Amino acid sequence: MDKLHELPVHEAVVQISQGTLKPSQLVAAYVEQIAQLEPDVGAFVHLDVDAALNKARALDTMAPTGLLCGVPIGVKDIIETADMPTGYGSPIYAHHQPAADAACVNEVRANGAVVMGKTVSTEFAIFHPGKTANPHHLAHTPGGSSSGSAAAVGAGMVPLAFGTQTAASVFRPASFCGVVGYKPSYGLIQRGGVKTLSEAFDTVGVMGRCVKDVALFAAAASRRHALIPDASSADAKPTVGLFRTAHWDEADEASQAAVLGFAQRMSKCGVRVQELVVPAVFGDLLQAQTDVMLAQAAIALGYECTHHASKCSDKLLEVLEAGNAVSDQRLQEAVNTISAAQAAAKDLFAQVDVLLSPAAPGEAPRGLQATGDPVFGRSWSALGTPGLTLPGATGPNGLPIGVLLCGALNQDRKFLAAAFALEQSYKASLDH
Amino acid sequence: MDKLHELPVHEAVVQISQGTLKPSQLVAAYVEQIAQLEPDVGAFVHLDVDAALNKARALDTMAPTGLLCGVPIGVKDIIETADMPTGYGSPIYAHHQPAADAACVNEVRANGAVVMGKTVSTEFAIFHPGKTANPHHLAHTPGGSSSGSAAAVGAGMVPLAFGTQTAASVFRPASFCGVVGYKPSYGLIQRGGVKTLSEAFDTVGVMGRCVKDVALFAAAASRRHALIPDASSADAKPTVGLFRTAHWDEADEASQAAVLGFAQRMSKCGVRVQELVVPAVFGDLLQAQTDVMLAQAAIALGYECTHHASKCSDKLLEVLEAGNAVSDQRLQEAVNTISAAQAAAKDLFAQVDVLLSPAAPGEAPRGLQATGDPVFGRSWSALGTPGLTLPGATGPNGLPIGVLLCGALNQDRKFLAAAFALEQSYKASLDH
Repeated sequence: MDKLHELPVHEAVVQISQGTLKPSQLVAAYVEQIAQLEPDVGAFVHLDVDAALNKARALDTMAPTGLLCGVPIGVKDIIETADMPTGYGSPIYAHHQPAADAACVNEVRANGAVVMGKTVSTEFAIFHPGKTANPHHLAHTPGGSSSGSAAAVGAGMVPLAFGTQTAASVFRPASFCGVVGYKPSYGLIQRGGVKTLSEAFDTVGVMGRCVKDVALFAAAASRRHALIPDASSADAKPTVGLFRTAHWDEADEASQAAVLGFAQRMSKCGVRVQELVVPAVFGDLLQAQTDVMLAQAAIALGYECTHHASKCSDKLLEVLEAGNAVSDQRLQEAVNTISAAQAAAKDLFAQVDVLLSPAAPGEAPRGLQATGDPVFGRSWSALGTPGLTLPGATGPNGLPIGVLLCGALNQDRKFLAAAFALEQSYKASLDH
Repeated sequence: MDKLHELPVHEAVVQISQGTLKPSQLVAAYVEQIAQLEPDVGAFVHLDVDAALNKARALDTMAPTGLLCGVPIGVKDIIETADMPTGYGSPIYAHHQPAADAACVNEVRANGAVVMGKTVSTEFAIFHPGKTANPHHLAHTPGGSSSGSAAAVGAGMVPLAFGTQTAASVFRPASFCGVVGYKPSYGLIQRGGVKTLSEAFDTVGVMGRCVKDVALFAAAASRRHALIPDASSADAKPTVGLFRTAHWDEADEASQAAVLGFAQRMSKCGVRVQELVVPAVFGDLLQAQTDVMLAQAAIALGYECTHHASKCSDKLLEVLEAGNAVSDQRLQEAVNTISAAQAAAKDLFAQVDVLLSPAAPGEAPRGLQATGDPVFGRSWSALGTPGLTLPGATGPNGLPIGVLLCGALNQDRKFLAAAFALEQSYKASLDH
């Protein structure tokens, strides 16, 4: 392949392990992409290509080991790194230098990954956006809060990047930037060294270009090597539940068409697809997630709000005010709602392997002042279930639209195998 | 009352709010206790009584506000503070100065609490002990990992302190030091700014001298003011399930007698006590908790282990090695076991309000080289259910022994009201 930066990671690491590709060649290919595209896209808040190239050259001289030997990655800037500043998307922490790598960063580095830089996050992973533009159309948002990670992968500046999701911060930007965004089951990838927003939901996720690559990255970050789909996974015949969610009307025509088109294509491939009734409790789930998230954010960011209010955006202060206003009783009701919805979700996954629903309300909105609506992420964040977005469809402006696949809680191995099989069928159907 | 340092916190804050007691008087009483006892007990790794007295004098001049106005507290040294170094119990982080207060510290400070100092933690809240001795007998361990917090409260050097529990690190030291140790439901008190050990279980808890005080502290730390038992709580007639756990034989005679004695006293007070059958799945729960905790610890402390191995204790390196050896399959089985046990626990709490079981295998063992066996904490840490230890019994060496009360997940308000009622009955029965 001429274009090294388009090589899937799972193929690149095989070539590196066989000695037919050097880590420095792979990293250099991405450095070239960055030189061309980063000035426009602005995916990175801190970039150190020289350090990455030096690291890669050092790897050239060693016997290749690890799941990600020589693979350049991006790290969302709410995730701490010992050798690069970590600003959490806030001017309060400009030039802040943590003493250690976050657990997930340490794990992938131990597997040979090369950190290219820190990617732009919205302020504390909430709403206030950074500088990043959508690589598919610079006047449109990349989504958030994992804006830089989605844009960097979408632009081909790195093949993999860490994001995080509390409401919809992996699914939405992944859908907007045309990449695979995988949010594992709650807790699968550890959060040590990741700035807390709402710990009931905060989940480390990953961006990549195909299911196998995100599985590889998550496997390295969590030491759960069984997550990687193998040869038998493509032959799996997962059953799919078309699940319109309680908010189907908030998806535009193009996003609805992406979901229904995906279902149709799967049916044609012989996959069993059935529509599922949305349990009533799902109607309250979005509000419950919002209440818990706001109340927790007000506490998690209470120090910054008290001691550095002048460096907090108006939008952030509004969010924290809203969190202060969530009553004890409303919080308890929200916790009870989420618990009931988790039981209902268990019943759904007794009927089908995978739920299919919208990944976002539509293609990326125009403008960089906001990052889009998290409506289609919140429920899954509340449930803690694994999910990933598959790109493939496009909207009226030619921008990407993903579909969302979700699996049963703590069954990520089975889920990723199913998602891999569906991705293969979907890609084959799109090529026809 | 002559002895200000013996005044319950919930009474002290009323006196302060009424202007009959000054914050500086209250803090000074504890400073005197510290001057007398700290040289022997060694509960603090960092102490700043001058700063505490200055803070208290500043509070003297203001209108009293907050749930904890003028109350001196201790903070376990794996919990970050912006104005005091935080060493996580490890020489790797000697003199480490975090940039912000942990969320829980910020909340209680906003409620007027005065941080007296950082209390000794075992190394990264695992096994390797610090310098602290048991205030009831200096040749005996205070327990761990929240060693300093339990000892400081047990010695009357502060009336409240933060601890954390991953296996048994609140219950065990609380039992050994004769204090009330409350581990809330998983996630009730947020963990932002608390060093991660095993995020599936890590829980911020509190040490105090009575149920109402720990409830007050937890309410301030979590903004859940409804947690505080009110006048009606003492009249509640909770039902109690005598629950021997799957490890009853590992409790010594004195610890068994404490549990059975408590049950008997409650029966005499008219509380309905029934023995419950321990579900079979509880037999596997201790191992499942151990497997998940070890596997997560190896990742959570992977950076320290890789980059600072020479400053890790042998015991820590052993633990991390054991974590590295937990296979993917064993981990998945452990997750499934815990999920099944959580369902079984739900059934138990449909039968009774509170489960009664041993808090520790016995009184504090002699020697400061180890902190005792976590066997009676692990299951509850795995389940995430709230629990607290009540002191009252003593062992053959005259050292304290607690009993453990546990409640249903996320029903902490109801649990604390029940525990308060039982504490009142227990105290009355002991006074007879």
